[in-house]
Amino acid sequence: MIEDKNQQRTELSDLGEFRLIDHLTKNFEIKLKSTIKGIGDDAAVLDFNQNKIVVTTDLLVEGVHFDLSYMPLKHLGYKAVVVNLSDVYAMNANASQITVSIAVSNRFPLEALEELYAGIETASKIYNIDVVGGDTTSSTTGLLISITAIGEVENNHVVYRNGAKPNDLLVVSGDLGGAYMGLQVLEREKEVYKVNPNNQPDLEPYSYIVERQLKPEARKDVVKLLKDLGVRPTAMIDVSDGLSSEIMHLCKQSHVGCDLYENKLPLDPQVISTCEEFNIDSTTVALNGGEDYELLFTISQDDFPKIKANPNLSVIGYIKEKEAGMYLVTRAETRIELKAQGWKNFND
Amino acid sequence: MIEDKNQQRTELSDLGEFRLIDHLTKNFEIKLKSTIKGIGDDAAVLDFNQNKIVVTTDLLVEGVHFDLSYMPLKHLGYKAVVVNLSDVYAMNANASQITVSIAVSNRFPLEALEELYAGIETASKIYNIDVVGGDTTSSTTGLLISITAIGEVENNHVVYRNGAKPNDLLVVSGDLGGAYMGLQVLEREKEVYKVNPNNQPDLEPYSYIVERQLKPEARKDVVKLLKDLGVRPTAMIDVSDGLSSEIMHLCKQSHVGCDLYENKLPLDPQVISTCEEFNIDSTTVALNGGEDYELLFTISQDDFPKIKANPNLSVIGYIKEKEAGMYLVTRAETRIELKAQGWKNFND
Repeated sequence: MIEDKNQQRTELSDLGEFRLIDHLTKNFEIKLKSTIKGIGDDAAVLDFNQNKIVVTTDLLVEGVHFDLSYMPLKHLGYKAVVVNLSDVYAMNANASQITVSIAVSNRFPLEALEELYAGIETASKIYNIDVVGGDTTSSTTGLLISITAIGEVENNHVVYRNGAKPNDLLVVSGDLGGAYMGLQVLEREKEVYKVNPNNQPDLEPYSYIVERQLKPEARKDVVKLLKDLGVRPTAMIDVSDGLSSEIMHLCKQSHVGCDLYENKLPLDPQVISTCEEFNIDSTTVALNGGEDYELLFTISQDDFPKIKANPNLSVIGYIKEKEAGMYLVTRAETRIELKAQGWKNFND
Repeated sequence: MIEDKNQQRTELSDLGEFRLIDHLTKNFEIKLKSTIKGIGDDAAVLDFNQNKIVVTTDLLVEGVHFDLSYMPLKHLGYKAVVVNLSDVYAMNANASQITVSIAVSNRFPLEALEELYAGIETASKIYNIDVVGGDTTSSTTGLLISITAIGEVENNHVVYRNGAKPNDLLVVSGDLGGAYMGLQVLEREKEVYKVNPNNQPDLEPYSYIVERQLKPEARKDVVKLLKDLGVRPTAMIDVSDGLSSEIMHLCKQSHVGCDLYENKLPLDPQVISTCEEFNIDSTTVALNGGEDYELLFTISQDDFPKIKANPNLSVIGYIKEKEAGMYLVTRAETRIELKAQGWKNFND
């Protein structure tokens, strides 16, 4: 798709590495007071005064994390940023800067990279962050994106994974499994396209879940909401690899157990109907789907009244002593031990 | 070399992504007070009090930036860190933390990655930095390393590329061209090896330049030296792509010109003798070789007495008005306009 012959095509070799990064980032504005110096020197210079700094990094590889046959490059750029910001928000911090490095093969024309960077720019505007550095280089095959995100948080406001206490409530934002089912729909359409390239897919009935896959959002709003509600989570993690795996991380690091209730898992009607269509169990999808980029956190029971009316938040279980283990309580009241089945790329 | 059949071989797929990063980083100690939380949460947490923060990132790709047929993985890990720290020191800052992400194909066994991380750990000990985050993922081909380095610097002590003034002296640390000539020697031995795998190369006569290529050091010592001498550079950049290209960056950003003196270029005797052996002009190598990771900086003439006796520092020219242009003054007193001929990967 990205190699449409009708489009203008400028070879990367016409620019060279220095001019490429200059060209791609020339429209990027510095918006934040904490960015003293952005792109253009050996390093960016930042100033957070007394605040603490959080740093996180992610690597996205073509053929492993994304498939350009259905992922538009602009969406990919947007998603690559969002995935990293989600980790910053999961620390209860405010994302402020990113660096973006790409390795790219000569099969990509300059116009393709401009699309990618347009997505990065859009995300940086929407989330109010500055792009302060990066590197571009050639690769022997495919496209690879490495992003490091930096955020700031007031002293003592950091929320780690390890603070959950027995009797805390387990809460998740938004709904689960959408991104995974969106991927199933896109994979199916890709197979159809291979057989009949003239077939125009009708993705309208799947618009929500396809958007969850192609253009996810990080829950900056939830961090703000919790602050506004006066709720400080005792532990927090973002749901990138699947709810089950994230709950296990949180519980293990907090040295606690938990009961998770199947009937409390938040599912969008489109996820349920698509699961039926694909004959997949929606609970399995919610537990192991991954890429939801929702926030999973624990709160003290005292804070329950503050969140209970909020449509963005679902209480899905509660924290127990470590010895109680980590269990899913099904609709039939059966207890099933939680297992992590998130993405394991090396097992492919 | 790394796939020696006699070595133990543990497939990456036996571990999975989560356990891989845990395994590789389990020996990494947190050494610095500024590292509040390292690996193990959604993000690292850092505290620099009132100091400014510098951030830089680099991407190294197999087949583009390194060749594993002569680059041992431990050296590669070490070099990947050093390359990034060099950018931090070029801001007159002290490097403190790094994140390390790798994409790796299944052709690498776990033991190979352990070697790579052993090099990373060695560098982090020698330079006193903490490894605070990272990501491991599979790649369809080869190995790719993305490192982000973070440093801190007291307020108003940052040195940018853009502060050089007419009449300032142009100074470089160490010597130039060694890494490039080391690469030439290694490339030659690789060709010999292809023809006769039993041939044992004698690299002893090239030990210095081969080490400059395989195990470069970042000039943390020079930043400290300048501080001890009471010299604040007016502008600074590290020499990664070649002296000529770095001088041009520095002059362009400072809106100045310069005269660079060929007879002042610091060359190690081994560089000179190897250039003669390969029939390459040593000045060309010093100007365009790249990967020296020395510091290039400008100082006020008033500071000359403080540095003139130092064997680590060479005054190689001086800054002029912008209109004077950027020139190399040869031994024959000919003036040749400087051109950047540094690494341009996309032109390969």
